[in-house]
Amino acid sequence: MKSVYFFGEGNAEGSAKDKNLLGGKGANLAEMTTLGIPVPPGFTITTQVCTEYLQSSNYSPSLDAEVVSALHSVESIMGQKFGDADNPLLVSVRSGARKSMPGMMETVLNIGLTSATIPGLIAKSGDERFVYDAYRRLITMYADVVMEKAAGIDPEPGKGIREKLENHFDSVKEKEDVTADTDLSAKALKILCENFKKIVAENLGKSFPDDAGEQLWGSINAVFSSWNGKRAVHYRNIEKIPHDWGTAVNVQAMVFGNMGANCATGVAFTRNPANGENAFYGEWLPNAQGEDVVAGLRTPNPLNENSRSDEASTLSTLDGTMPEIYKELLQIRTRLENHYKDMQDIEFTIQHGRLWMLQTRTGKRNGPAAVRMAVEMVENHLIDEETALLRVSPDQLDEIMHPALDVEIEKQTPVLTKGLPAGPGGAFGQIVFSADEAESWYKEGRTVILVRNETSPEDVHGMFASAAILTARGGMTSHAALVARGWGKCCIVGCSELNISVSDKSLSVNGTTLKEGDWLTLNGSNGNIYSGQIPLKAVDLNTNNWFQQLMVMADGKRKLGIRTNADSPQDAQQARDFGAEGIGLCRTEHMFFEPDRIMAMREMIVAHNEKERRQAVIKLLPHQQNDFYGILKAMSPHPVTIRLLDPPLHEFLPQDEEQIKELAESLNITLDALKSRIENLHESNPMLGHRGCRLGISFPEITEMQAEAIFNAAATLIQEGVKPHPEIMIPLVGTVSEFTHQKSIVDAIAKKVQKSTHIEIPYLVGTMIELPRACMTADHIGKAAQFFSFGTNDLTQTTYGFSRDDIGSFLPHYLQGNILASDPFQSIDVEGVGRLVKLGVEKGRSANPELKIGICGEHGGDPASIQFFKHAGLDYVSCSPFRVPIARLAAAQAELN
Amino acid sequence: MKSVYFFGEGNAEGSAKDKNLLGGKGANLAEMTTLGIPVPPGFTITTQVCTEYLQSSNYSPSLDAEVVSALHSVESIMGQKFGDADNPLLVSVRSGARKSMPGMMETVLNIGLTSATIPGLIAKSGDERFVYDAYRRLITMYADVVMEKAAGIDPEPGKGIREKLENHFDSVKEKEDVTADTDLSAKALKILCENFKKIVAENLGKSFPDDAGEQLWGSINAVFSSWNGKRAVHYRNIEKIPHDWGTAVNVQAMVFGNMGANCATGVAFTRNPANGENAFYGEWLPNAQGEDVVAGLRTPNPLNENSRSDEASTLSTLDGTMPEIYKELLQIRTRLENHYKDMQDIEFTIQHGRLWMLQTRTGKRNGPAAVRMAVEMVENHLIDEETALLRVSPDQLDEIMHPALDVEIEKQTPVLTKGLPAGPGGAFGQIVFSADEAESWYKEGRTVILVRNETSPEDVHGMFASAAILTARGGMTSHAALVARGWGKCCIVGCSELNISVSDKSLSVNGTTLKEGDWLTLNGSNGNIYSGQIPLKAVDLNTNNWFQQLMVMADGKRKLGIRTNADSPQDAQQARDFGAEGIGLCRTEHMFFEPDRIMAMREMIVAHNEKERRQAVIKLLPHQQNDFYGILKAMSPHPVTIRLLDPPLHEFLPQDEEQIKELAESLNITLDALKSRIENLHESNPMLGHRGCRLGISFPEITEMQAEAIFNAAATLIQEGVKPHPEIMIPLVGTVSEFTHQKSIVDAIAKKVQKSTHIEIPYLVGTMIELPRACMTADHIGKAAQFFSFGTNDLTQTTYGFSRDDIGSFLPHYLQGNILASDPFQSIDVEGVGRLVKLGVEKGRSANPELKIGICGEHGGDPASIQFFKHAGLDYVSCSPFRVPIARLAAAQAELN
Repeated sequence: MKSVYFFGEGNAEGSAKDKNLLGGKGANLAEMTTLGIPVPPGFTITTQVCTEYLQSSNYSPSLDAEVVSALHSVESIMGQKFGDADNPLLVSVRSGARKSMPGMMETVLNIGLTSATIPGLIAKSGDERFVYDAYRRLITMYADVVMEKAAGIDPEPGKGIREKLENHFDSVKEKEDVTADTDLSAKALKILCENFKKIVAENLGKSFPDDAGEQLWGSINAVFSSWNGKRAVHYRNIEKIPHDWGTAVNVQAMVFGNMGANCATGVAFTRNPANGENAFYGEWLPNAQGEDVVAGLRTPNPLNENSRSDEASTLSTLDGTMPEIYKELLQIRTRLENHYKDMQDIEFTIQHGRLWMLQTRTGKRNGPAAVRMAVEMVENHLIDEETALLRVSPDQLDEIMHPALDVEIEKQTPVLTKGLPAGPGGAFGQIVFSADEAESWYKEGRTVILVRNETSPEDVHGMFASAAILTARGGMTSHAALVARGWGKCCIVGCSELNISVSDKSLSVNGTTLKEGDWLTLNGSNGNIYSGQIPLKAVDLNTNNWFQQLMVMADGKRKLGIRTNADSPQDAQQARDFGAEGIGLCRTEHMFFEPDRIMAMREMIVAHNEKERRQAVIKLLPHQQNDFYGILKAMSPHPVTIRLLDPPLHEFLPQDEEQIKELAESLNITLDALKSRIENLHESNPMLGHRGCRLGISFPEITEMQAEAIFNAAATLIQEGVKPHPEIMIPLVGTVSEFTHQKSIVDAIAKKVQKSTHIEIPYLVGTMIELPRACMTADHIGKAAQFFSFGTNDLTQTTYGFSRDDIGSFLPHYLQGNILASDPFQSIDVEGVGRLVKLGVEKGRSANPELKIGICGEHGGDPASIQFFKHAGLDYVSCSPFRVPIARLAAAQAELN
Repeated sequence: MKSVYFFGEGNAEGSAKDKNLLGGKGANLAEMTTLGIPVPPGFTITTQVCTEYLQSSNYSPSLDAEVVSALHSVESIMGQKFGDADNPLLVSVRSGARKSMPGMMETVLNIGLTSATIPGLIAKSGDERFVYDAYRRLITMYADVVMEKAAGIDPEPGKGIREKLENHFDSVKEKEDVTADTDLSAKALKILCENFKKIVAENLGKSFPDDAGEQLWGSINAVFSSWNGKRAVHYRNIEKIPHDWGTAVNVQAMVFGNMGANCATGVAFTRNPANGENAFYGEWLPNAQGEDVVAGLRTPNPLNENSRSDEASTLSTLDGTMPEIYKELLQIRTRLENHYKDMQDIEFTIQHGRLWMLQTRTGKRNGPAAVRMAVEMVENHLIDEETALLRVSPDQLDEIMHPALDVEIEKQTPVLTKGLPAGPGGAFGQIVFSADEAESWYKEGRTVILVRNETSPEDVHGMFASAAILTARGGMTSHAALVARGWGKCCIVGCSELNISVSDKSLSVNGTTLKEGDWLTLNGSNGNIYSGQIPLKAVDLNTNNWFQQLMVMADGKRKLGIRTNADSPQDAQQARDFGAEGIGLCRTEHMFFEPDRIMAMREMIVAHNEKERRQAVIKLLPHQQNDFYGILKAMSPHPVTIRLLDPPLHEFLPQDEEQIKELAESLNITLDALKSRIENLHESNPMLGHRGCRLGISFPEITEMQAEAIFNAAATLIQEGVKPHPEIMIPLVGTVSEFTHQKSIVDAIAKKVQKSTHIEIPYLVGTMIELPRACMTADHIGKAAQFFSFGTNDLTQTTYGFSRDDIGSFLPHYLQGNILASDPFQSIDVEGVGRLVKLGVEKGRSANPELKIGICGEHGGDPASIQFFKHAGLDYVSCSPFRVPIARLAAAQAELN
């Protein structure tokens, strides 16, 4: 089995198709090389070598020869020799997994600098300062990435070898009275390097290796090992990347952007990743190494005018500074987009006026950008509609549904300060100054904004827990910006006016001081920052043409119907605007909580007999009728699935003494009598108690009232020329006889209303399938019912025996221990709950081929679940109004997959 | 379709095989007629006519002609004519369903007496008093059974037409100064009949019909209609008799046991129904109609010396009084038993020295009698073993397991009074004087004894609710005795010393007065009654040879293994004595409730971290080890299935302030801190919460401790030469990864103990299948597990979404409304839960053909469920020790069915 793949000077052994084997970076370096794009020569060691190495801690005996041979090819292209005293080749060793995991694994640069090769390189480059600067970088990286890890040392935060070296560096700069690294003399750097080696030997009990080969293999081992590093594992858990993929290692000839004024380094996107505009967009730093851009320590220059931010108002563009190079880059941009047919994220280095491409990969983008790019690429005939639909992830669509700040209020609010708008949308929250704090506040249910000078991969858990992220440093490609954009999270970076004191847990900006817990509002779309809270407002998607066009494409492909869960005419209208084709779940109980109704509801619940109960129930009729009138009208002529009363009665009972007293007075009974009645209604497991159709069976008068309200409302609407389509849903049915009991009540009331109004009302009676028993006996229930709607929330609860309210005590242990891959309430458990759903569909349709089948649990808005429901043969999914567009897209994708 | 089946003088159109069509009584009258046994001629109108009549309120046009034709045949045999003035035929109209429903439907006797036929009958019989006595009985029955019901009157208790007529009867007797009915003169009876007819017309707005044909059809209609009478429906619900069977109607020539001294009536059993002895047993009344015996108003005479009770010590036997008739009856007894091959319950009437058989049916018997008869009939080669096994119902076996009074204590307790031992076993309870009272006290959780002068079908619900029944009147075949025996309930009847005042709710006996709520103890096996409570003791089945022989027969036929659910060495031993072949469920949590352990348990629960938790857990180790030592030893060499900790933790927490304080002190934390910790552990739905293997996954140290205790105990036993077979069961598994997580802990501890002790311990690790998801993914779980044990309690809860603790609020409505046929926690729901069990078995075995599968829920002791489990392919059932013999029998029956 071949383990090493060479690329260089127009020839490559791999290609973009070999991502699984060569990782994304390696495959694309090969591909670019073949395309004739200038790429420093190098080779890729496969992911398979990684997997084997991590299992056995050994390489196959043939690997060494393969590496040597590939290295020779590099040497011959570069006219240099690795470890050679006269004309030494330096190489970089970089990770590269199948899927990009930015900053999660290790990199070592400048490998090959030893006491033997340094003089040769100084002679060749004529730049002693540059060589010792490269050497100190190598020592720092190698000590941190290779040696400390290999020694098994897991230092406390801030006390690692890297920090020790950097502290020494800072003290030298102070002693030499310089501020920028570049101001240190060659001599000072030379001494610094000697001191670095001493510090390394003292702290890690081993000397920094003075052998090029040892440096190379140490770096390769370290990169492979970093696949199982803590932060990489954590990132893969969040991103659901399989842990057995492994990473490839890319060994590549070094090119230097930091060898003088005609050198530079930069990153760019072939289109704007923040808004999707079809314009070249990027940042560069003159006389710098690539890591300087990504680390966000210096505010980078804009690539062109189009890329200029307020931050960089005075900095020169590459376009202006090196117009020829910029032109070459622009050509490469076009070639890459036409080749890959997607927006590319590229890294380049300019060494002595020569352009080298170090990386191309599909660029991450936020939601609005993803939608715009997909639609515009179809318009430009770059891709077809299917590709466009598959290219926008449902999460990205979710992102553009995210609320933005209320513009009117924002206008009137003074801007506290400004930063780079790295993640769009608005957010407010209480500020915290550490990732741990962010996570623990989040767990307490608070909305937090993480404020940092800059973020690092160690902060990922806290970033995840935050509503938004704000950093004082870094650009649009800094760690914070990349991570936040990936998650569609509101983010502002490079807000240089911020003075953050982590130890005091406070920040000061323009004379204002904010402490931990103070509120801040971020506009991630324009970079404005406000003190306090500004209310959020949904974006008006009607004005977003790209969104609208994508939805039209989706509707053209999907076969699954999309309904919404809505309990009010307002929600119904909102959902229609988003494209809902009916209501899949209208929960009638929400209507009972309004102040003018709750008292009648309570009277009904504590009634001792049918007569008292009827007296109370009848008070609810006009309210319910009014509710149904509004909702049936708002959705007409689409169907509205109305679920009859479902929750356990105690949910409606007053909890505090005051309300109990009030109810007792209104009922004209003693406080004690009422309390004992409430006590009586207590249930050990209300989820499995007196609820759902069990209520309607015990108290048929409730079902009668609700049916009457529905049919009266429908009759009135028909008289007014509106076309209502009520579909009455009996909840929590476990046996067909429960269903027929309730259906016969509904049918009788329908008959009565139709007879007295002389109006024929079209309606269906169906049931929610939300108990395992309903699935197992769906053949019986299907014979009697006109539709099924899977209630996968309750079905998940009963199938797993998990109470959603109580799962918090053990679910974290389950997710951590990989006992569950994900929360089954978020994405349907295909293997267990899914098998029951399939069984229910099969049995139901076997009894009644005309049976209409939908799903109205939370899973109805989850893309992975929608894929499953399509596969299971459902007719429609129903989800919350704001998930409707996502469901439309996911349904189209389900057809295309 | 033929609707009327004639029988008479050795010829019958039906036979015993036609029970479904002719009802039990009709089919047996036909069979007896064909056997040449003297049966008054008559005919049976089929159950099918009943079903049609109840649906359409009409008969098919041909029915009338069929009835007339059959009536002619009867007339020609009897030499009488129905409605004829000179020589009138009188007939009875009786119900007769497929299955006997004693006293639940209507009967009308003496039909055909009219102003036209009375003179003729007086002339023929020469007994005017007899004729008017028959007439007043006809009027009473007809007014009550036919006219009042037809008028749609539902009188308050005690205010019906029957009571009005009886009150008038009593007032006439008082006026005439006579006590016995028979002392009234013909003249007085004649006037009485005229008054009766006036009272009927006044109260029911219609005259008593003076036409024989109208009387006949009115009675036929009334009997058919009585199938849907309230008490008949109630009885069928309890006895699970389908409501669509309908009843047949038997019209039969009247014979009279009340025409003088050479007349009599009686009922008898071919063997003793109370103890099973192979001896003719019965009661008779000279000069009486059959209803007098059944009503229990007079203490009946013994049939023979063998049937004599203390009550009847001076009454003459039929054997002594009419030896020739007795001899004929004895021959019929033998013929019937040889023919039917089962004990028969017969009714006879002697009219002027001639014996007529009115009924034969398979006799009801109590448990001990059923077992003895079945075994003795095999010994006598009357039936084979299979028949014997199928003839004893599991309920009857249950009955003989019922506790009896503690003999030693009973000996020392003075007898309050004595009655007829109508239902064996002992019972104590608080006395109540009405059926409604009995039911409502029972619902409050009290143990009651219903005390009545006599019982009637209206009392059935109260009898059902009572631990025992005591009546002042009636014999062994009275209503109370029949019903109680059918249910295997403790019952004493004919306790004539009791003076009951229903209005005062008190009874006085031998100078003692007892009020409602006072305690009474009954010995239903000898008829002794005691004031207060005498403790109960299990019967020693070892001395019951018939029981032992039946069990040997059962073990010879069954293939299903029988284990027991036991948590202590005592229970284990008890179950072994009953024949258990292992423990299917040993609940370890019960062990934690003992005072010396609960504190350590609580410390463990409120621990904040693993270290604290380990400190507490380790205190439990020696206790658990000791427990397992005892139980593994008691069951050796049979397997013991030990379930790891299962219940939600809050079950172990202190509830009252005092105990919380104590715990806080022992933990050295503040009361508030402990309270908030307890508050934290509260769950909305603990049944679906942090329990089962979720505990062991969150807190592996618990699993470790339990496994260590098991293996240490097993190792010690092996050293002592005992053969322990622990089977460790992981509870509440929903995913295979939960199982493998816990199994790997158990296996690791096993390895450790085996290594340190150098002893090889045989053990299995399996899981409880008690969640729908476990059934749906049993193929995955089956691959990893060595055994499955279905936990059908929890599986029923989650499949139905029913909390067993909360079902009380709606289950009654479900049972009443026929939405559920039975409580699914008592007998397994084959259609829903059963399908999941089958799926689990199939999937489990498909992955692992060697998988051992059992069931350890409450259903393991339920005969109908055992039948299902056998069918589903399980290897064993496990039930509580006292259900083991029942399970052995039910398992044998499952093979034979």
